[in-house]
Amino acid sequence: MWKIQWQDKKELSLARQIFLSLRERILAGQLAAGERMPSTRELAGSLGVSRNTVCEAYDMLLAEGFTVSRQGAPTRIARDVCLDYRSAGVATAPVKPEADRLLWDFATGRPDVTLFPWKLWSKMLGEAACQLSPGQWGYSSPKGYELLCGEIARWLLRSRGMLVEPADVFITAGATQAFYLLAGLLHKTGAPFVLESPSHPAMYTVITDRGYPVQWLEVDEQGAMIDTLTESAVSAVYVTPSHQFPLGGILPAGRRAALIRLARDNDFYIIEDDYDGEFRYAGPAISPLYSLDASHVIYVGTFSKTLFPALRLGFVILPKPLQEKWRHYRKYMDVQNPVLEQAALTAFLRTRAMDKHIRRMRRCYGEKRSCFLQAVQKHFADSVCPWGDASGLHVALQFPGAEFGERFVEESRAAGLGIRPVNRLCPSLHKQHRDKLLLGYGHLNAGKIQEGMSVLRRLMERGDYGYVTRGS
Amino acid sequence: MWKIQWQDKKELSLARQIFLSLRERILAGQLAAGERMPSTRELAGSLGVSRNTVCEAYDMLLAEGFTVSRQGAPTRIARDVCLDYRSAGVATAPVKPEADRLLWDFATGRPDVTLFPWKLWSKMLGEAACQLSPGQWGYSSPKGYELLCGEIARWLLRSRGMLVEPADVFITAGATQAFYLLAGLLHKTGAPFVLESPSHPAMYTVITDRGYPVQWLEVDEQGAMIDTLTESAVSAVYVTPSHQFPLGGILPAGRRAALIRLARDNDFYIIEDDYDGEFRYAGPAISPLYSLDASHVIYVGTFSKTLFPALRLGFVILPKPLQEKWRHYRKYMDVQNPVLEQAALTAFLRTRAMDKHIRRMRRCYGEKRSCFLQAVQKHFADSVCPWGDASGLHVALQFPGAEFGERFVEESRAAGLGIRPVNRLCPSLHKQHRDKLLLGYGHLNAGKIQEGMSVLRRLMERGDYGYVTRGS
Repeated sequence: MWKIQWQDKKELSLARQIFLSLRERILAGQLAAGERMPSTRELAGSLGVSRNTVCEAYDMLLAEGFTVSRQGAPTRIARDVCLDYRSAGVATAPVKPEADRLLWDFATGRPDVTLFPWKLWSKMLGEAACQLSPGQWGYSSPKGYELLCGEIARWLLRSRGMLVEPADVFITAGATQAFYLLAGLLHKTGAPFVLESPSHPAMYTVITDRGYPVQWLEVDEQGAMIDTLTESAVSAVYVTPSHQFPLGGILPAGRRAALIRLARDNDFYIIEDDYDGEFRYAGPAISPLYSLDASHVIYVGTFSKTLFPALRLGFVILPKPLQEKWRHYRKYMDVQNPVLEQAALTAFLRTRAMDKHIRRMRRCYGEKRSCFLQAVQKHFADSVCPWGDASGLHVALQFPGAEFGERFVEESRAAGLGIRPVNRLCPSLHKQHRDKLLLGYGHLNAGKIQEGMSVLRRLMERGDYGYVTRGS
Repeated sequence: MWKIQWQDKKELSLARQIFLSLRERILAGQLAAGERMPSTRELAGSLGVSRNTVCEAYDMLLAEGFTVSRQGAPTRIARDVCLDYRSAGVATAPVKPEADRLLWDFATGRPDVTLFPWKLWSKMLGEAACQLSPGQWGYSSPKGYELLCGEIARWLLRSRGMLVEPADVFITAGATQAFYLLAGLLHKTGAPFVLESPSHPAMYTVITDRGYPVQWLEVDEQGAMIDTLTESAVSAVYVTPSHQFPLGGILPAGRRAALIRLARDNDFYIIEDDYDGEFRYAGPAISPLYSLDASHVIYVGTFSKTLFPALRLGFVILPKPLQEKWRHYRKYMDVQNPVLEQAALTAFLRTRAMDKHIRRMRRCYGEKRSCFLQAVQKHFADSVCPWGDASGLHVALQFPGAEFGERFVEESRAAGLGIRPVNRLCPSLHKQHRDKLLLGYGHLNAGKIQEGMSVLRRLMERGDYGYVTRGS
């Protein structure tokens, strides 16, 4: 009667296999309630294992209540433990097609991580691991590692001239988490969030996932057209004033002042996303909206572009009235950031390794940008117009007369090219940006950039997207 | 006219200080729209700085739109950039009282991090940093590091006999994030979440913060009283079957089967929180509900207790129908976990350093538990009853006849003791657990435990909480 199909899994002890086999019979009703279990001696004999092994399995059954035992009486099967093992009819998640094989992937938001000083970073991680106190390995604070908040304040002063109190710096798991938390924090019933169109899909998705309304702010060469904002009751306005994503405009001082005046008069917060302010190739970093009015602007920064995305470290500078609620939300969302990277980043900033790395990367991205623009010039001459300020890791290219839609996406992917049309990021009805493509170059080397542009040219010559090639 | 109060901040370049000073005057309206800027030569002379420095400041003003410049014409102040600098009336966040000075803090959920193998962990972090490929430092996947998912599946097999597909393992920023995401994922309009009373406040807070209804499940010595669950339309049921938090019962097989039957018949998911299943002192780990029906149970695990809380690593085993929605939510919440700790934990599991560490900690916590129970015996003899299975890092102590409320909390804190009454974790109306205290001992040494219990005894003798001391 007692046979067990031993599994060929070294990981599973004999006792556990016996336990699992007995449990399966009990659950299936093959061993009925009140029935007496075989003696451990008997079972050990028939299975050819030691009696201790069987005792261990019996202890497991008893501890979990599959059997009951009274002093002196034999062990019996417990009541009501039978379970009808009908097949559960598990639906399977839709299988996604294999990731396309993109030979030239001009995706945006990807820094060149091969140039990051990994050896130094490793060293700083190791040192941080040695220096942190036991208290810091426990639950510390949803605000973040205090020394890091201080170093970020100093970094913002020397890189952007911002005067920030470390007490107002809150560490986040990247900018994405900041947007997620802010959507919940700033929502006022019935009042829309105002977003730029086009803009990054993260903020839009977070807001619409929660069922909150959105109002769009059109974007021109200079950034968000603030004077088109007519709604006065808004939950918050989200802007990228230093380098509009994706079109690249720098929001002029007049529009900045107008936006601040609106925020003050109508009592709303502005979310300022400074996603790549470090990488400006001509002149110093743009000073942020935040420094015009720290009480109405929530500044969101990230280290995903300057260091690497899988670090998951960003921060938000939070006006005091929002801080208590933020702490509560963060505590019950994921408690806090891991401490080790925070401590290593503290050292990276304190020793100015950050400043050195940024200088190096700015040079490097500047060269990639030149290479990219030369390739554009070579293949499309002056018929194509790059948009925006000379900064960041991407460019929006305007092909006058063209119209880029799903057909372009399919045909370019088939050719091995990963390029997004700008109008994919325009959820508003106006499609004035349908003649523009968005190309990230930060993570690509010169060869890939040149090849990719030549493939794009052939595609533009072949297809008829309404644009006439005029390159050499 | 042109005077600048140089700041004594070495971090701020002269050019930026000039820029900030000019910008302030423009914003305040002291330099009016259309007004001509002084020539760079003139300003440089009056400030005693080089002309290049002034040019740099002018470039910043121009780039940000505070001034306008046409070829050949002098630079002028832009229009509409004046901002009325009225005081913004910033409310300050309420200042919290200084953290109480607790000499004997019997907080729960705190492992002893001083015994963690930091040197080995540092080494594994360093090796992981060297081995990860550039692609892994970028955005990889909201699911988690694949090799880690595989190691977790193997770990669950050898430690708990669970058969898990790595494809179903999703990495989280601790168990807290799992609960947060599951609340959003499983909510059905109007249907309550069913929670144990008492239970950990994390799940309760997450659910009520979203305005979702809650139904309570009373708890006795054996865990949740499943037969009191009468509601059939529920969003999900949250339980701690291996070691009820905080009362310590092991949910018996009969109740397990009843709960699974309910879930199948009424089509809801069970959230199984296995927060400290590793630390069972008598016999092997309890096998989870998950292994009875993987299609109706969502198993949540954490490394906060086995490694350390500030690691922020946990996982959830997710039925396939929930996986796509989970990916979407996680992607827009914080994208993914940092990669480095995931890679290091992979090595920690693969090399069995985990198994060794758990064995060591089980011994260590077992000794602490004995020490704790001896101190209880010494001071309270048999008049006090410890609840629950011999496992985990805390004990619930029942003082028959006593009633612990806010007065106890205040008086014990004043005496330097950090101890929570169990009824603080009972949001339901029934107060049958008001005679119990919750004491975490995992992070304390023998001296602290013994002293703390002696202070508790004096407090019980002094105060009148309805309990009569009978210790020696």
